Amino acid sequence: MTPEQIAEKNARHAARMVRKKAVIDASIARATEDRGLLIVITGNGKGKSTSAFGTMARALGYGMKVGVCQFIKSRTDTGEEAFFGKNPNVEWHVLGDGFTWETQNREQDIATAERGWAVATRMLNDPGYQLVVLDELTYLLKYDYLDSDMVLDTLANRPDMQHVIVTGRGAPDALNELADTVSIIADEKHAYRAGVKAQRGIDL
Amino acid sequence: MTPEQIAEKNARHAARMVRKKAVIDASIARATEDRGLLIVITGNGKGKSTSAFGTMARALGYGMKVGVCQFIKSRTDTGEEAFFGKNPNVEWHVLGDGFTWETQNREQDIATAERGWAVATRMLNDPGYQLVVLDELTYLLKYDYLDSDMVLDTLANRPDMQHVIVTGRGAPDALNELADTVSIIADEKHAYRAGVKAQRGIDL
Repeated sequence: MTPEQIAEKNARHAARMVRKKAVIDASIARATEDRGLLIVITGNGKGKSTSAFGTMARALGYGMKVGVCQFIKSRTDTGEEAFFGKNPNVEWHVLGDGFTWETQNREQDIATAERGWAVATRMLNDPGYQLVVLDELTYLLKYDYLDSDMVLDTLANRPDMQHVIVTGRGAPDALNELADTVSIIADEKHAYRAGVKAQRGIDL
Repeated sequence: MTPEQIAEKNARHAARMVRKKAVIDASIARATEDRGLLIVITGNGKGKSTSAFGTMARALGYGMKVGVCQFIKSRTDTGEEAFFGKNPNVEWHVLGDGFTWETQNREQDIATAERGWAVATRMLNDPGYQLVVLDELTYLLKYDYLDSDMVLDTLANRPDMQHVIVTGRGAPDALNELADTVSIIADEKHAYRAGVKAQRGIDL
């Protein structure tokens, strides 16, 4: 590029950024409310649970107390539990029997789901937990292991300032309607389909 | 539901899970390679940086050494830095001047980008870092602050077993092609648009 072209590019960029700043400043001015958020991270792509764990890191950075319920996973040898499990501000529960296609037993899955939900309910009734992560809860709704109305009711009636993150594929519409923030992660490309094994420290 | 209907529902579920298990077992058998992954988390939805931070937690759970470059952010009072910044296995660099619409100065942004990229390059040449997080790198490519070919070359030639996560909106196609895993987070709903302020411990 010639110096004239560079100068023109810089000028166009500057004009664009002036407009952008005005739009963003106006939306910041409109956002004034403080409240506990219900965040849903769904879709088939990679990054749902890790997004919840990264948000936990932020919350713990401010000294908040965090409760985690992992509803599907049965293994406790994951990187996330090794890292967070012993933190005094974290209460971590692995509440599953493995994926539904591993147990091959619907009645057992329902009993496990109900035991897990009892743990979650205790946290969702206690304002002492400032963030509650309900990892892979969506599957329990999708397969009708839990009554959706009961789950939504408990979420809607939790303490005002308590944040909750729900992860998992196929979040039902009624959950998304109740949520404040919904992100849908699309699976554009996955190393696994190219023959790469689940990598320790990345995938588990 | 009558007992007969419940039994039928359980039988249908069991048949479905038998088929699902066969498909999943076969794909696990095909995935045999171990290698450092390049993961891109892009799109307009919430959860990109937190997904990278959650993956860091997994890696740290296995005692890996992690390097973080935050390319846009200038503030160091975030929850993530408070939480991870003092971890002996983490090297954390805040390398930005704030968003492009805050600086309002393209030449300054380019100089800042180049200084930041020098830090990243050092990590991307060093197999001692098992995971490198390049938070919000995409903006530097999108605005032509860095030469894309140079960036892609450095990523392609990094140590074999080093994992890298790139976050930010608008990841360029060439980056997605190089990546092993690409997740695109869609912004289905955001509390901010309903007037809720960025929440400490959740959004920052």
